[in-house]
Amino acid sequence: MSVYTPVTEAELRDWLRRYSVGALVALEPVAAGIENTNYFVLTTQGRYFLTLFERLPAEELPFYLELMAHLARHGIPCPAPIADLSDRYLQTLNGKPAVLVTRLPGSSLDAPAAAHCAELGALLARMHLAGRSYPGYLENPRGPKWWRVAAKEVSPFLAEDKRFLLEDELAFQAGQRFPDVPRGPVHADLFRDNALFEDGRISGVIDFYFAGVDCLLYDIAVCANDWCLDAGNGLEPQRARALLAAYHEARPLTADERAAWPAMLRAAALRFWLSRLYDYHLPRPGMLVHAHDPEHFRAVLERRRGAAAPWMG
Amino acid sequence: MSVYTPVTEAELRDWLRRYSVGALVALEPVAAGIENTNYFVLTTQGRYFLTLFERLPAEELPFYLELMAHLARHGIPCPAPIADLSDRYLQTLNGKPAVLVTRLPGSSLDAPAAAHCAELGALLARMHLAGRSYPGYLENPRGPKWWRVAAKEVSPFLAEDKRFLLEDELAFQAGQRFPDVPRGPVHADLFRDNALFEDGRISGVIDFYFAGVDCLLYDIAVCANDWCLDAGNGLEPQRARALLAAYHEARPLTADERAAWPAMLRAAALRFWLSRLYDYHLPRPGMLVHAHDPEHFRAVLERRRGAAAPWMG
Repeated sequence: MSVYTPVTEAELRDWLRRYSVGALVALEPVAAGIENTNYFVLTTQGRYFLTLFERLPAEELPFYLELMAHLARHGIPCPAPIADLSDRYLQTLNGKPAVLVTRLPGSSLDAPAAAHCAELGALLARMHLAGRSYPGYLENPRGPKWWRVAAKEVSPFLAEDKRFLLEDELAFQAGQRFPDVPRGPVHADLFRDNALFEDGRISGVIDFYFAGVDCLLYDIAVCANDWCLDAGNGLEPQRARALLAAYHEARPLTADERAAWPAMLRAAALRFWLSRLYDYHLPRPGMLVHAHDPEHFRAVLERRRGAAAPWMG
Repeated sequence: MSVYTPVTEAELRDWLRRYSVGALVALEPVAAGIENTNYFVLTTQGRYFLTLFERLPAEELPFYLELMAHLARHGIPCPAPIADLSDRYLQTLNGKPAVLVTRLPGSSLDAPAAAHCAELGALLARMHLAGRSYPGYLENPRGPKWWRVAAKEVSPFLAEDKRFLLEDELAFQAGQRFPDVPRGPVHADLFRDNALFEDGRISGVIDFYFAGVDCLLYDIAVCANDWCLDAGNGLEPQRARALLAAYHEARPLTADERAAWPAMLRAAALRFWLSRLYDYHLPRPGMLVHAHDPEHFRAVLERRRGAAAPWMG
């Protein structure tokens, strides 16, 4: 259960008086998520999602919240932050920065089919198009700079073959710069559990708290490495093609992006291997959720390095 | 059918490329409404509502659109304008100012019960609370200044008894100033057809194109004069009490507001009698919808003048 800071009904009832969302009907802790404290909130007005930020730097929060607000008013089905009576998104609850956002319908899928990947690809492209006019800037907080810091910290825990893999991949990625690949705000964590579906249609994209500005193609690579895996961690051609073709229809991919695809898939695998190594070997005190096994993304990375990872579009 | 400016599927398909809302699936003209051209729009992303403005002054449109956006991000279930790829709400389509907004679920009620009036009252209060932080200003375009202009224009068409009624009521209202009654953005046209219900809960408030800044109590009076009528145009006590009590719970009404209530009910009746007289005797060229009968609101006004209109809270 990812509740680091408990909130009682009485506390929330009081707190909701700062908003114009009606009175509290029910409050339910959310099991998913490892970074923040989350509750489902039902009021006389509607369904909301409450997040108390446990460790995100306060100065980064406006980037995430304004990005969600920006995308929502462009028609992207993402959580829309609710402004309080003083017209602010960010509030405080039980000593933590807190935000109330809309709760979207639908549920996530364990085993998406090609049609779901096409839905995802189209939405991702629309999100990138809508994000172009977003004025905020935050460098992808899990980008190349962070890789180097994290690699230094986890290296002492790694057996030699893995340390070599990590160093070799970092050296390879250091040579990749992609100066002509379109950049903009990316979700950067759009795994299956961060997309909601209803009646086969994508009904929501959630959890923007790893977002940042990076290559748009990186967002597609993160998705491909989770949504389109075959049993051997390769890209299953039908789903990968569906994802890329639907994306391409809404935002045509450039020749530079096609050329960057194999390296981008490796970068996306490296990032999650690194963060899972980090959470595994250097868990934060009080972390309530068992860390993901880092081995999965090591295997994905090895596979992306080995395979030609041809263009799937 | 309130379509003054036809829009073809091909035209809309092209136009929607300016947005990140997916591709057009279906387009359906909307029969209701007399001021604008309206279409229901279904895309691969979701359900929207398209409005082409036929006669609203262009300089007033930002007040309405920003107000809707403001209320929506405070959790009020009102149409949220969709920003285009250049981050603007107001676009042009077939030569007319045009906006795409979210389409809300639910449908309007002909014969609301007390429970529906309570839902309405609570939402109206929340809307007024959320509106307090709205920085835009537009004087109620159908307020006292407009009454005097409209009265001059319709007077020549009125029989003597009605002219006397109109002049007498204008003289009475001229003596009412309400300097201490709370003011803010009001919907000012929240008739039954502008509220949507789903499973007994209010699911939407629509059509903000008569909104302006005025006494908040005026909004309640407009509602009471439509939602709470008995067969003789009096206020049916159960529904009126439900409306006011639910409002009062979310935003307690002041002693000044209680004192102003009878005069406010008369003001709200006068406004709609006048506008219906105007549309009846001075129809705009090309107006496609038959004007409402002005007699109804004359009868409501007479009844409010005659009755003591006691406080219903």
